[in-house]
Amino acid sequence: MTKTLDPQDWTAFRATAHDLLDACIDRLETAAEHPWQPVPDAVKTGYALTGDAHGEAATAARLISEILPYGTGNTHPRFWGWVHGTGLASGLLSEMVAATVNANCGGRNHGMVHVEREVIDWTRRIMGFPETASGVLVTGTSQATVIALAAARHRALGPEVRHKGLQHRLTAYAGEGVHNATRKAIELLGIGADNLRRIPETDSGMDLDALRTAVESDRAEGARPFAVVGTAGSVDFGRFDDLDRLADVARAEGLWLHVDGAFGAWTRLADAPWRALSDGIDRADSLALDFHKWMYVPYDCGLCLIREEPEHYAAFAARPAYLAGHGEGLAGGDPWFCDYGTDLSRGPRALKVWTAIETYGAAGLGAAISDNCRAAAHMGARIAEASPMALIAPVISNLCVFTADATLPPEAQSTLNRQLSEALQLDGTAVFSTTEAEGITCLRAAIANHRTTLADVDAALAAVADKAREMTTAGLPLHQTD
Amino acid sequence: MTKTLDPQDWTAFRATAHDLLDACIDRLETAAEHPWQPVPDAVKTGYALTGDAHGEAATAARLISEILPYGTGNTHPRFWGWVHGTGLASGLLSEMVAATVNANCGGRNHGMVHVEREVIDWTRRIMGFPETASGVLVTGTSQATVIALAAARHRALGPEVRHKGLQHRLTAYAGEGVHNATRKAIELLGIGADNLRRIPETDSGMDLDALRTAVESDRAEGARPFAVVGTAGSVDFGRFDDLDRLADVARAEGLWLHVDGAFGAWTRLADAPWRALSDGIDRADSLALDFHKWMYVPYDCGLCLIREEPEHYAAFAARPAYLAGHGEGLAGGDPWFCDYGTDLSRGPRALKVWTAIETYGAAGLGAAISDNCRAAAHMGARIAEASPMALIAPVISNLCVFTADATLPPEAQSTLNRQLSEALQLDGTAVFSTTEAEGITCLRAAIANHRTTLADVDAALAAVADKAREMTTAGLPLHQTD
Repeated sequence: MTKTLDPQDWTAFRATAHDLLDACIDRLETAAEHPWQPVPDAVKTGYALTGDAHGEAATAARLISEILPYGTGNTHPRFWGWVHGTGLASGLLSEMVAATVNANCGGRNHGMVHVEREVIDWTRRIMGFPETASGVLVTGTSQATVIALAAARHRALGPEVRHKGLQHRLTAYAGEGVHNATRKAIELLGIGADNLRRIPETDSGMDLDALRTAVESDRAEGARPFAVVGTAGSVDFGRFDDLDRLADVARAEGLWLHVDGAFGAWTRLADAPWRALSDGIDRADSLALDFHKWMYVPYDCGLCLIREEPEHYAAFAARPAYLAGHGEGLAGGDPWFCDYGTDLSRGPRALKVWTAIETYGAAGLGAAISDNCRAAAHMGARIAEASPMALIAPVISNLCVFTADATLPPEAQSTLNRQLSEALQLDGTAVFSTTEAEGITCLRAAIANHRTTLADVDAALAAVADKAREMTTAGLPLHQTD
Repeated sequence: MTKTLDPQDWTAFRATAHDLLDACIDRLETAAEHPWQPVPDAVKTGYALTGDAHGEAATAARLISEILPYGTGNTHPRFWGWVHGTGLASGLLSEMVAATVNANCGGRNHGMVHVEREVIDWTRRIMGFPETASGVLVTGTSQATVIALAAARHRALGPEVRHKGLQHRLTAYAGEGVHNATRKAIELLGIGADNLRRIPETDSGMDLDALRTAVESDRAEGARPFAVVGTAGSVDFGRFDDLDRLADVARAEGLWLHVDGAFGAWTRLADAPWRALSDGIDRADSLALDFHKWMYVPYDCGLCLIREEPEHYAAFAARPAYLAGHGEGLAGGDPWFCDYGTDLSRGPRALKVWTAIETYGAAGLGAAISDNCRAAAHMGARIAEASPMALIAPVISNLCVFTADATLPPEAQSTLNRQLSEALQLDGTAVFSTTEAEGITCLRAAIANHRTTLADVDAALAAVADKAREMTTAGLPLHQTD
């Protein structure tokens, strides 16, 4: 036998780890000074693995110099791209412990599975789901959607679908603004994206008459409508379906109601008027949400919550002999999470959520969420009064979609907005991402950032205005960037 | 606006974090003194979340007293239950940085996606896959199997399967000892578990004549055979299919060859004779493996590797407007990992693998893997000479399956082995899990533990012998535990 992989010198390792921790805390403490920056080519090349051993100290030094500075930038107060959470100092605490304990939460009887149950139970209560509900933590809403729709598929087709596979054409329904995660889940489950009907929507969500008509028409053609996906916070505009009325329709039509609440479900913790946006979420058959967006915990962590545990279990449970549970030992601890999803090996991702809730409390997290909505509202109000900027859609929750110069022809606006987005990222001012609306590539801010202040919003908009003026003055048509 | 969720007092937070780090290192340094122990009821009850805020210091104190002691036990040198990796001190370093950076690796242009590419590329080279291959890190082999078989399904049915869904009966093939992950993936994909044919196998893997016969018979009945799943390290006995010959059959029959190499793929880093077990793995169309088992990195992390990138991309790529990639800014960085799997939000799980390889090197990790095989061989040899204990199957790699008293009737052996497993877990001696073989519940050791020495094996077997003698002397039939 050779030796273990443990440090040969624990005192030296301890010193290395403490130095690294200081570097991490320095970084967190100065987050406002560190916007996203491109990875220099030399650093990028240096990431290549030769397979040579360098030991703990040399590797830690590289983590400090080559990894810490080159993140996604979402720790910076003016990062509003896509929908990225900020991260939390409590995550540094929880992840040290998670790495040390190294628990596998697929099952068995140990602390971390009980922690996961409590995280699920707390969320269940916040979301107003009944005590009959079950849940499982996953990487994020994409996985949660797969699990929820697999349970819906099982309700529609019974146990036969697990044995024989899909033998009927199922159809599902969602608003036009539904997140791509639903399409990808429908594809993965073998249902086919064409069988996901996109229902027209307005700022107040899906057109329910159109939904009913689509369901009836599919039934008439021999398909089996099985699920409708409500959206609590659409990715483009932060729209919310009227979940109460949608639940009525789902019940009347015998459809499984799944809600994509990736970020928007957390309006349950927000002040009025934002909290009311997710009213009715408690009536869903299943709910997918993320903790790494608007609960700010480090990536990745989401939850699939299912109203009736037996429907969840029936869709996934399967334990061969080598996973038999028994007795008071480590093999006890039923139920096992592996029976509620795809993963058998499962990291302790509950701990970062548990630690965040214990540290900041529901009120602290809710205040940050409300502040993000306030910041988006402020951004919208400033844009509305700062011609030639213009809002493309009303600000509903924490999303703000706008164009830098509404006086330009559509194509020039698209080019300008794309170039602005890129220029502001590159100079470290602010991160907006882009999306399409009314045929125009727009700037889009999704504020899920507890470091954002109103002053950050003002500074970013001033930079947009200045840079746009500079670019348009330099002459249109603007340089095409992609 | 209220305030950010950042610490109000960074000096106090720093002190809290350093104290916690010391507690974590203390725990790692004394891992041999800390076997699994049940969570006391009072601690379990205390995990419940009230939603009140307690701040960083109080929460960190609870992490030390209520979380650190109650892990799965897989950090202990005599833990051999299921197939659990040990964890690594380097994981403590990487996870601090991962939590601080808080990168979302779904896409975009930042350091952690480049790190992930290098981890995939290094593994590709170790596994002998061509440069045309692509990969994506996932939670583990269960997810990797879903992705691989989705790509296989796409090859069989073309893009239509994404649009229209499954309209043909597909059949897949695997040895009888195939891991449940394959069955669950086949179910999730809508193919149906009955369409996964279990082919008889011996200690040297799947019976290839039986495989050919099954494929022909399914074809004759109008099904579409699409994939065969080879096993590199079966979960029960550590068996390996003859991957070279299996690849020949797969090619001849036009089947996608997927290999489940969850732990066994890492015999590529081992000494002779174990390395040869996975010869031929380089011929697979796809490979699923874990880093959290036999590469010892903290949970969770696995990889799906696909031989031809276009087949991988075609099965999953889908980017709506809000994910458009462009230019030199943060929205650049193509390809994006979200186009190679289900997850859009993706944690930086590459970093713990990168850090482990940089710290210990391929040779260091390989030496630990070889030592685990040596320990299993030693365990097998000791059992063979220690009647009434008896091996149930030959020791091939790192797995050893045995009964504590082969002189008893089968039912009594099952009861004895179950009770032994539980008693040794509860008294902290060693963790064996159980499985079924020849109608008997057996003791099973899967050694993926860099802390295990030959002395640990001897001590555990002595305890098995003593405890078995004590239990059988106390009189049979033994108390039924479940």
